[in-house]
Amino acid sequence: MDDASGPDRLPRGSRLTFSRRTLMAAGGVALGTPALGLAASTVPGSPAAAATGATKKITIYAESLGNNQYGYGLAPGQASIPGPLLEMYEGDTMEITLVNNTTQRLSIHAHGVDYDTASDGAPLNNSFNNPGETRTYIWRSHEMTAAAGRRFMPGSAGYWHYHDHAMGTDHGTAGVLRGLYGGLIVRRRGDILPDKTFTVVFNEMMINNRPTTNTPTFEANLGERVEWVAIGHGNLIHTFHLHAHRWADNRTGMLEGPNDPSIVTDNKDLNPGSSFGFQVIAGEFVGPGAWMYHCHVQQHSDTGMAGIFLVRNADGSMPPAASADIDRFRGHMSKMSTAHGAMDHTK
Amino acid sequence: MDDASGPDRLPRGSRLTFSRRTLMAAGGVALGTPALGLAASTVPGSPAAAATGATKKITIYAESLGNNQYGYGLAPGQASIPGPLLEMYEGDTMEITLVNNTTQRLSIHAHGVDYDTASDGAPLNNSFNNPGETRTYIWRSHEMTAAAGRRFMPGSAGYWHYHDHAMGTDHGTAGVLRGLYGGLIVRRRGDILPDKTFTVVFNEMMINNRPTTNTPTFEANLGERVEWVAIGHGNLIHTFHLHAHRWADNRTGMLEGPNDPSIVTDNKDLNPGSSFGFQVIAGEFVGPGAWMYHCHVQQHSDTGMAGIFLVRNADGSMPPAASADIDRFRGHMSKMSTAHGAMDHTK
Amino acid sequence: MDDASGPDRLPRGSRLTFSRRTLMAAGGVALGTPALGLAASTVPGSPAAAATGATKKITIYAESLGNNQYGYGLAPGQASIPGPLLEMYEGDTMEITLVNNTTQRLSIHAHGVDYDTASDGAPLNNSFNNPGETRTYIWRSHEMTAAAGRRFMPGSAGYWHYHDHAMGTDHGTAGVLRGLYGGLIVRRRGDILPDKTFTVVFNEMMINNRPTTNTPTFEANLGERVEWVAIGHGNLIHTFHLHAHRWADNRTGMLEGPNDPSIVTDNKDLNPGSSFGFQVIAGEFVGPGAWMYHCHVQQHSDTGMAGIFLVRNADGSMPPAASADIDRFRGHMSKMSTAHGAMDHTK
Repeated sequence: MDDASGPDRLPRGSRLTFSRRTLMAAGGVALGTPALGLAASTVPGSPAAAATGATKKITIYAESLGNNQYGYGLAPGQASIPGPLLEMYEGDTMEITLVNNTTQRLSIHAHGVDYDTASDGAPLNNSFNNPGETRTYIWRSHEMTAAAGRRFMPGSAGYWHYHDHAMGTDHGTAGVLRGLYGGLIVRRRGDILPDKTFTVVFNEMMINNRPTTNTPTFEANLGERVEWVAIGHGNLIHTFHLHAHRWADNRTGMLEGPNDPSIVTDNKDLNPGSSFGFQVIAGEFVGPGAWMYHCHVQQHSDTGMAGIFLVRNADGSMPPAASADIDRFRGHMSKMSTAHGAMDHTK
Repeated sequence: MDDASGPDRLPRGSRLTFSRRTLMAAGGVALGTPALGLAASTVPGSPAAAATGATKKITIYAESLGNNQYGYGLAPGQASIPGPLLEMYEGDTMEITLVNNTTQRLSIHAHGVDYDTASDGAPLNNSFNNPGETRTYIWRSHEMTAAAGRRFMPGSAGYWHYHDHAMGTDHGTAGVLRGLYGGLIVRRRGDILPDKTFTVVFNEMMINNRPTTNTPTFEANLGERVEWVAIGHGNLIHTFHLHAHRWADNRTGMLEGPNDPSIVTDNKDLNPGSSFGFQVIAGEFVGPGAWMYHCHVQQHSDTGMAGIFLVRNADGSMPPAASADIDRFRGHMSKMSTAHGAMDHTK
Repeated sequence: MDDASGPDRLPRGSRLTFSRRTLMAAGGVALGTPALGLAASTVPGSPAAAATGATKKITIYAESLGNNQYGYGLAPGQASIPGPLLEMYEGDTMEITLVNNTTQRLSIHAHGVDYDTASDGAPLNNSFNNPGETRTYIWRSHEMTAAAGRRFMPGSAGYWHYHDHAMGTDHGTAGVLRGLYGGLIVRRRGDILPDKTFTVVFNEMMINNRPTTNTPTFEANLGERVEWVAIGHGNLIHTFHLHAHRWADNRTGMLEGPNDPSIVTDNKDLNPGSSFGFQVIAGEFVGPGAWMYHCHVQQHSDTGMAGIFLVRNADGSMPPAASADIDRFRGHMSKMSTAHGAMDHTK
């Protein structure tokens, strides 16, 4: 990214801490300034209302990965599935120059953020890239704005996602199936930043379009603050289950206070077009080890929608039994693969 | 409706505004009066607990619409799919005289409100209309009541729905499939009223039982406060996605305050028997245009579960590109219809 | 259970009442003591962090019930489907000695609570019982802990569940299908206790693995505080609908205060691996009678996923029409059974 203001430019790798005082001040700025009232009183649809943040300009390259797979990348030859995790703060704008280096029509459509029809990413609005074409999409975002009755119209903060909306059909069905998707996080000022973020996509019977024998392993050290962005795609129901860790089913995964009524869960529906996110402290209360995450639809987990969240010791060393556990898991997955035939649905 | 006290009798068409002072006072009345304590201390099940509101008496006519479709209407010959949107405030009672002008057994069953077994609408409780029969169903509602520990048992406010529970099977499967359903809103005193309300029902592979080539177009002017009531029916999973607009996943779709922990979303599960609602400001932060709403299950959107939310300019005029965009959308839908065969699943 | 400190040792059968004063004091203890800060500052994963509660030691026997069904029970010969409802308070530990009296490999895997890899219940972690084997599983729990920004990492309180994770496949697909599951409630100090608790499990096309002609009838007297624990298993979507009663879609089913933004619902997705719970006052605002609960997927309710919540009069006597209503319901279910063939999917 071209710009140093985003959360992705803040120090990672070590646990981020904030004093309570700092966060309260930040919260006060976000909610109590004239800017907020101003936003609420301006004409709806005015881009000015969201103009207080930074503008990030990035270029994304859509490319074929062979094997009938496609990906988005931040540089030529670096396309991946999922595409790069994009992050912004409420109020920021992201200008995405999408370079279509494929022979297919495609686009980029975002959930959660603000865009004109020209940046919708939908063929309906003539918003797509023909083969070889470059096109700029602009995503804006905004903080909550005051409404009547002490209520607020919601801001843009959330665990969102982006995906193709034009390859194969006018809903991008081929593009999504083949890997054109990624995570998009809009943070509120004062949100706690994680040490690392994992993006996990349940897409038909695949996780991140990987074959059963090679589902993603997500690694962290004991005590690291780990953020998960979960995205659902395709046509099937899925439920995302994580062993030994749990989160509040709300915007951040944490409780906003002792009276926050949110349900705490470790198993959540992840159906097509949906996304959610949360943060956990790796291994907190349970220790290091090889912990499974999987779809809890029995047939789906049995046929390979399962992977490992490897929580290493605090110093990064391998927990004693974990290597054997992972071997056992991989042997099991491989056996299933043989029994059920090739599970790589991407072919 | 026979009664002037309900929200449907309040001025529409122009944006409704409330001073903060008025709303706070209203909130005080709802939550701080002796009536509330009284309700909590009376015998459970006593109709007296909900007797402080108004009583509305309406007549609903169930009719055949031809083509094996059925609808509810507020006058003979006016049946529609969905049926009329019904609204009440917490504490109100609705007396519905249901006239069955069809040759089928049918009923009306409501979600969310209070009713005796005689008004359940379920054949189990002998609560239905035989062909040609007229029967009265009484729906009551109530405000939240105090429970131990500073908690409250919830009131009736919500984005609910009503539907047949007796045609075809004892669960009304034929009646629901053929169009006997509608939206029901119970408002809390002080809730913000919208300029207009749309009811959108995902019923098997149809939206409001309309054929693919003629899915509903919902229209509003830039800046209008638009309320959506989304209802799921049938046997399939659906996810409701709205382009360029988003809402808080809570009772109102707005944040109750800066610490409201609710997730903000633009894609929500809409499975059988479920309903939810929210308000958006049409085109806010994104401008006017032809915005899609659709089921995000790829196969469903590809085969026609998609429609247009047309946000006109603030003065009601057509945004420059929108007509062409809609033509393009309709051409696409028509092409799909040819490719996939007739999509009118109602036949 | 061996220990007198848990909620299951508190008096049931009569309505439990708390003074507001008592509950506030309890809440203060839970959230304001040094113990909480201590937990937050200890090393993550340390069992000491959860050591302030009681330890319960129970033995569970996994047994064949014949007819290819299996159950968990608290004593030999007492296995049931669902298994026994397990309850604890945040901070408590449960030591479960699982005796496998079957000829199959099996385990017990819990949602929501804390456990080492040895107590995961997953074959991946070598955590299961071979036929005839006895093994101890330890589940810990914790209160919420402070995080930055006045937030809290969530505690363990919730309506959870446990199930086999080793019979048939490494995900326990055969064990779950055949009945090895049950409810697990972790309560927060100060939570309101119910008069009775029902566990209802939507497992493939069955309710609690019962045949269509014999779905569970749940009984309560008018005014009793009834708790429902709903659990989903298998491969299908389900939506749990309860007639004439509704709840807040949050941790307790009640509103935490007048500004609690939670949606109030009577129809909620209950997909594989999910669980939720709530409390209602039986018959409140609606009176006694035979009220249906059912899956709202039309095909599922039509083919037998429906049962009766019988609300008797306050003195326990039968409401006048209820016997006839139940006979009518059973006749209907029996007819369906004939039409659709045997519905006992457990064979």
